[in-house]
Amino acid sequence: MKIKIVLHTAGLILLVEAFLMLLPAFVGFIYQERSSALTFLASAAITAAAGGLMLLAKSSGANIYAREGFIIVGISWILLSFFGCLPFVISRQIPALADAFFETVSGFTTTGASILTDIEALDKSMLFWRSFTHWVGGMGILVFGMIIIPLGGKRSMHLLRAESPGPSSSKLVPKMRDTARILYSLYIGLSLLLLILLMAGGMPLYDSLINVFGTAGTGGFSNHGASIAYFDSEYFEVVIGVFMLLFGVNFNLYYLMVLRHARAALKSEELHWYLGITAFAVITIAININSLYENFHQAVRYSFFQVASIITTTGFATADFDLWPQYSRTVIVVLMMIGACAGSTGGGLKVSRIILLVRSAGRGLRRMLQSKSVEHVRFEGRIIEEETVSTCMVYLTVYVLTAIAGVIIISLDNQSFETNVTAVLSCLNNIGPGLGMVGPVGNFASFSTLSKIVLSFDMLAGRLEFFPVLLLFAPSTWRQGILYHK
Amino acid sequence: MKIKIVLHTAGLILLVEAFLMLLPAFVGFIYQERSSALTFLASAAITAAAGGLMLLAKSSGANIYAREGFIIVGISWILLSFFGCLPFVISRQIPALADAFFETVSGFTTTGASILTDIEALDKSMLFWRSFTHWVGGMGILVFGMIIIPLGGKRSMHLLRAESPGPSSSKLVPKMRDTARILYSLYIGLSLLLLILLMAGGMPLYDSLINVFGTAGTGGFSNHGASIAYFDSEYFEVVIGVFMLLFGVNFNLYYLMVLRHARAALKSEELHWYLGITAFAVITIAININSLYENFHQAVRYSFFQVASIITTTGFATADFDLWPQYSRTVIVVLMMIGACAGSTGGGLKVSRIILLVRSAGRGLRRMLQSKSVEHVRFEGRIIEEETVSTCMVYLTVYVLTAIAGVIIISLDNQSFETNVTAVLSCLNNIGPGLGMVGPVGNFASFSTLSKIVLSFDMLAGRLEFFPVLLLFAPSTWRQGILYHK
Repeated sequence: MKIKIVLHTAGLILLVEAFLMLLPAFVGFIYQERSSALTFLASAAITAAAGGLMLLAKSSGANIYAREGFIIVGISWILLSFFGCLPFVISRQIPALADAFFETVSGFTTTGASILTDIEALDKSMLFWRSFTHWVGGMGILVFGMIIIPLGGKRSMHLLRAESPGPSSSKLVPKMRDTARILYSLYIGLSLLLLILLMAGGMPLYDSLINVFGTAGTGGFSNHGASIAYFDSEYFEVVIGVFMLLFGVNFNLYYLMVLRHARAALKSEELHWYLGITAFAVITIAININSLYENFHQAVRYSFFQVASIITTTGFATADFDLWPQYSRTVIVVLMMIGACAGSTGGGLKVSRIILLVRSAGRGLRRMLQSKSVEHVRFEGRIIEEETVSTCMVYLTVYVLTAIAGVIIISLDNQSFETNVTAVLSCLNNIGPGLGMVGPVGNFASFSTLSKIVLSFDMLAGRLEFFPVLLLFAPSTWRQGILYHK
Repeated sequence: MKIKIVLHTAGLILLVEAFLMLLPAFVGFIYQERSSALTFLASAAITAAAGGLMLLAKSSGANIYAREGFIIVGISWILLSFFGCLPFVISRQIPALADAFFETVSGFTTTGASILTDIEALDKSMLFWRSFTHWVGGMGILVFGMIIIPLGGKRSMHLLRAESPGPSSSKLVPKMRDTARILYSLYIGLSLLLLILLMAGGMPLYDSLINVFGTAGTGGFSNHGASIAYFDSEYFEVVIGVFMLLFGVNFNLYYLMVLRHARAALKSEELHWYLGITAFAVITIAININSLYENFHQAVRYSFFQVASIITTTGFATADFDLWPQYSRTVIVVLMMIGACAGSTGGGLKVSRIILLVRSAGRGLRRMLQSKSVEHVRFEGRIIEEETVSTCMVYLTVYVLTAIAGVIIISLDNQSFETNVTAVLSCLNNIGPGLGMVGPVGNFASFSTLSKIVLSFDMLAGRLEFFPVLLLFAPSTWRQGILYHK
């Protein structure tokens, strides 16, 4: 384990974060929030100083192994969240450190779970930073850093792999740095398009930006307590609903389209399942909630937005689905677990993993009949390597065990079973709201500090797909390890 | 697929069931429940006639393949439950077929979930039959049949494997029929010991038998609405509590002890984990519920019995854990999923599967660091075959998918999230009670017919470990298939 290269890279990332904090400072000056603006400048200075200190650990070689890649990503995200929460703490707009840390982790991991009981009470610059973390975390801040700072090829590969969601991350082009550039170009392009559509509908620039950040990162933080329901506009709901779904699609498909391989992109099995599951959920929920609304059109309107918000793991709301009948609530919880497509900004298990799990389970059952039979799992027209299949199963196992451990620990707070289960699922899958106390009109404020730490861990574990975070807790990392070797 | 051998074997099993129905008929005559006694005789006649008709399908050869083994077990259990519920329907003590079928499936699968709202209203002979199904289902009726009726070696092997719980079923002795004999001898021996201890404590013979059936099969049906709390006796609670745990141990260990290999038996890793998990749950729950009881001794008393009842998937109750604080309720739900040891009469995922899952997940994570590394999963001092490891993961996947599908369907009844989740977990793991409406003082009466069918399916799927039941729903079984080939 090369501790120096870990510190060095994490230091670079902190410098990037310090740079990004200048943006909310600028917003603060515009809205004449002098004190908040200065807080951001101070936080940026502290973050830059910390980053600079870490840079002193000169990295000898540019090459690292998978282990270092995971460690770098895990440590970087924790440091990012820690320094990212400084503005909230220093300004005392979120005075408790555990709360501010939770909120910032929720931002970077694009979860959108909040401990705020009165969102509108915060300064505009603070809410801007809170939502901006969504946008940065959505595509990955290390991926972003990679564009600015040239890293070695192998280092880039391990970092991209450790930070990108999904069962396998494919290089779009041979050079990692170019891949990162392409991803961010597509990300910025789609974000700008959404911004234009929102402003064309008459949404103010500030609100538009907040909603672009929340939608693009599939995060879900809003600057209004009522979330998107605040606007009460079918136009905005359709635009944001469709864009949530668009940001939940594998970005590789957009790249294929840019290269004029639209037909290949539209053939994607994962896309078909993703849209199929969405359509099934929208229709059956609309039927289930029909009696609660004036007419079927309204039922479809609210069903569509909530389903799009949950399957993409965004977490915006226009209706309190906690009040819906049990079938709809249950489907919402299942959608939380499914999540969006691999290689998107969404969380959850990912549709492609679900497909692989279903297929390999089917094959496993058939194998019980003929243990000698050789049958491959196929996906997207290719034979899937056995290693990928077994990694998916390991993933599910770790997912289930982590979820159960989380529910047991937060049950000490004595909230309801429903609240505990859905709070953990909501954080682990980076959604935001759950059911009961943490429903769309609720929040995470009442949880104990211990629970907030556990849920912060779950958000990070879900966003980074467990390994980078779990590795930080493995005794071998520290023993063999990162502390003693250079 | 050899349809004739399937029919033939299932017919034999029905003859065994008809024979077993003479026992409750006898009980009916003793308690002067003439009408019920005659009902049992009539049901026995109908069952025997159906079995006899099926025997007309002469099986050509004694050898079958794994597929036939699973199909035979799946079909036999459904037929057993169908004919087993006739006494309830004919006597109109449980008039609705879906209810009677649910209750009988619950009996044979040793679940103990009930649709009865007033248990004591039923005839003694009816309650005897209801509980007797636990005892028969616990060790497996096909295994029982195997002792009476000589089947071919290969047929016995496939049937034993399909009916026995756990990730792998080992032959105790080369001959399957001898293995079955040994298992039933141990089962009967332990049951008799329990009977003596209960009667020594002053429990009437009838009540003692009912509780022996419920304990030995880890079923949980009681002849009293208050379950074991009816007796309010610490002696009975300790005896039944300890015996529930004993019946949750792998019977191979008892065989090892009989052969005077006690040291080897006590070395079992699964046993250590099983007792460790039990001890952890008993202690932490006792601390959690301490304030609800007079003193810590009482808290331990109630914690011990409930934990022993749930981890062994029995379902007896002496306290309403639905009223306990959230930590205790959550641990109870987790214990439901864990279940007892492989090769016991208990249900759930089984402790050995949990160990294998945890270990292979750990290995999977380590493999992400070094994909070329060859590391074996070890259990009970042996290297576990990769096929067994991957079968465990497939099992978890099928388990999770089945549970989710079940929760979605029964959510249409609009009961609470907690009720739906725990009802499915309770049935899938063959426990009995859950939380909320299906808590220890509740029952399954209010569910719709569709939900009762789904939950009956879950009970059978859980008891037979999915495959025999899922295979019956596979189109290939019927197409390729059982209907067209001879």
